[in-house]
Amino acid sequence: MKNMRKIIYYVASSIDGFIAGVNEDVSGFKATGNGVQKYLDDLQEFETVIMGRKTYEFGYKYGLQPGDPPYPHMNHFIFSDSLVLDNAKSNVKVRKRDLQEIHKIKKDSKTDVYLCGGGTFAGWLLENELIDVLKLKLNPLVLGNGVKLFGDSKKSYQLDLRSSEPFEEGLIINSYNIEYII
Amino acid sequence: MKNMRKIIYYVASSIDGFIAGVNEDVSGFKATGNGVQKYLDDLQEFETVIMGRKTYEFGYKYGLQPGDPPYPHMNHFIFSDSLVLDNAKSNVKVRKRDLQEIHKIKKDSKTDVYLCGGGTFAGWLLENELIDVLKLKLNPLVLGNGVKLFGDSKKSYQLDLRSSEPFEEGLIINSYNIEYII
Repeated sequence: MKNMRKIIYYVASSIDGFIAGVNEDVSGFKATGNGVQKYLDDLQEFETVIMGRKTYEFGYKYGLQPGDPPYPHMNHFIFSDSLVLDNAKSNVKVRKRDLQEIHKIKKDSKTDVYLCGGGTFAGWLLENELIDVLKLKLNPLVLGNGVKLFGDSKKSYQLDLRSSEPFEEGLIINSYNIEYII
Repeated sequence: MKNMRKIIYYVASSIDGFIAGVNEDVSGFKATGNGVQKYLDDLQEFETVIMGRKTYEFGYKYGLQPGDPPYPHMNHFIFSDSLVLDNAKSNVKVRKRDLQEIHKIKKDSKTDVYLCGGGTFAGWLLENELIDVLKLKLNPLVLGNGVKLFGDSKKSYQLDLRSSEPFEEGLIINSYNIEYII
């Protein structure tokens, strides 16, 4: 039976494709309004979250303790070849960056899988054709520099727009399927 | 009397902020559908177009003859410190990159001014707070590399979303005012 769980990259971006500014500054992104609330509500649907090390450690700035889950109701898989978390909670696991691990997580998850943050890790997943859906919280913002949506990936992909919805404060949430050439 | 003509940067972009791919490849952008038609219709409203040299010369690939106007109904101002056009048509003029020239064109135009193409020239205008409106034809496309929306500009700007409209083939046209800090 084909596993139908999807990996959903649900992320805030500037109109020039940055998910954070210099020094991971996200102060230019909208933090309030019904679009942000929609995103927070949507997150409740996920049982599983995957992220890279930098995204996990970004949480430390906001008081996250090493080993704790940023999303208490989800199972966390942090992808890193170097990170060590002593006393990690039972729903926080570190995994080596390995395609088989990703497939296993998709297979085991009871829900679609939330790809949190991105940049380098998202670029790696994209180039391995493992991101199924991109939900872009398009912020009314030019950043000019910072962390790119797909890190250092230089590859080009066509998308299929499934929905586009404007919210308060100029936020638009666009949902795209990624069209990998088969 | 305050001159109320606006400079409108009306441009196609990938979701990662590129207006063309490597070697100015624009084959991934939508060339058909009612969103493209909307753009072409909107262009009829402009009497004046400004662009950089690279954008003008890009037209040569599609049969434009040096000195001819890509938009016959508009007055063209090509900004370059090096370009020489012999036998230019009367509605095609080359101007040095000078802020006073931009102000004069705004002042003299009977309509808002269309900023065509962009990249380097758009970045220069942006950093001089001379782009009033950004009309983004957001294409369902990741490019990964190529010509950036604002060239090498690294500066950050907040935008004010005025309208967002989805069209056929996954194209969305978003209209933003640029919020310069006064």
